[in-house]
Amino acid sequence: MRHLYHWPIDPFSRQVRLVLEEKGLKTELEITTPWDNPEVLMNYNPAGTPPVLIDHVGGQDRVIAEARPILEYLEETTPTPCMLPGGPAERAEARRIMDWFDRKFDGEVNAYLLHEKLEKRLQGLGSPDPAVLRAGRDHLRWHLDHMTWLLETRDGLAGSRYTLADIAAAAHLSCVDYLGDVPWGEFETVKHWYQRIKCRPAFRPLLEDKWPGMNPVEHYADLDF
Amino acid sequence: MRHLYHWPIDPFSRQVRLVLEEKGLKTELEITTPWDNPEVLMNYNPAGTPPVLIDHVGGQDRVIAEARPILEYLEETTPTPCMLPGGPAERAEARRIMDWFDRKFDGEVNAYLLHEKLEKRLQGLGSPDPAVLRAGRDHLRWHLDHMTWLLETRDGLAGSRYTLADIAAAAHLSCVDYLGDVPWGEFETVKHWYQRIKCRPAFRPLLEDKWPGMNPVEHYADLDF
Repeated sequence: MRHLYHWPIDPFSRQVRLVLEEKGLKTELEITTPWDNPEVLMNYNPAGTPPVLIDHVGGQDRVIAEARPILEYLEETTPTPCMLPGGPAERAEARRIMDWFDRKFDGEVNAYLLHEKLEKRLQGLGSPDPAVLRAGRDHLRWHLDHMTWLLETRDGLAGSRYTLADIAAAAHLSCVDYLGDVPWGEFETVKHWYQRIKCRPAFRPLLEDKWPGMNPVEHYADLDF
Repeated sequence: MRHLYHWPIDPFSRQVRLVLEEKGLKTELEITTPWDNPEVLMNYNPAGTPPVLIDHVGGQDRVIAEARPILEYLEETTPTPCMLPGGPAERAEARRIMDWFDRKFDGEVNAYLLHEKLEKRLQGLGSPDPAVLRAGRDHLRWHLDHMTWLLETRDGLAGSRYTLADIAAAAHLSCVDYLGDVPWGEFETVKHWYQRIKCRPAFRPLLEDKWPGMNPVEHYADLDF
């Protein structure tokens, strides 16, 4: 058994939840809102942010903090099903795309849309700035264009298989979709890719997430959106 | 033989250069300034940023982009000397600290100091904003405090061994040190740790870096700083 401290609409926590489900690893989930009780997380992760995994092994607790280290840890300790398949070059390509979403998408889209619509509201920091939202949506379109370009030659973002690259991208995109900001109608290729991922049993718990006072957009849990 | 596209005062490129040296992998280095000729890099990395490694294997070129994927690739393909030693939990701790520097230190220190003093100047975007520099230096002190706390119980940042965590931290810190912004006198514990790393033969090429018109601070290459 293991514990995961997470926040439901956090793209990094979501990556870990998806992989735990894909690997069939039973986990007790505990929600922590990073801005309400950082001290809970600070005991485990000096950055004070989710996700944090506590793995109980041989009577001892292993504390693993941050999404990337947790994902690599799960690959090393539970290699089947393998989420980083292929040779070293293919794995590097999957990791490149994970980096792309965790640093580039996070800085260019989440920092605008999630921050303005979700973090500011839940922390009582005022209403979203329309100019910032516009910029975030422009960046999102650019990212969706880039994903289209990748998916025109590949079934998965990093190659023919479903890998951590798809999981990272879907986790990030799913948070923006929760807010209703993804213009699916204009990006058919990405929509079909996301539809396939949304249908996976591992994705179901994410579709049931609802944050009090902050309902998802109507089509959010719909497999035929 | 392999090729590395890098930029000398880029903390991400520096991590890769350090590991290539530690592993004794002969590499031809090619400097690309990200803002002058992104198209060179765009052929290999859609983000248009260094580092990019071209590994020539069996008559074929493997293109590996971005620091983290390159470092994991080098661990997989050249496991000795091992830069991610220990069991899965120890490796996770090293990766957590790499994340800390690549995302947190990068956003809280580099985005202020390197951007204001280096990127703005080299791109002709005006002179540094003193308020931004002050904020960057405050963040840096906080990070040095945090490193002190870690190093008071450990020889290396992630445990008893020298790992990718130390390499990531030293690469980031060395760029800020190039600009003369590290208050070494106030942080003896971190200074001793950095001194040990600076003495490693793998570090020497970094100490010889000089960017035209932008000399490093006087003590930069000094092992007794």
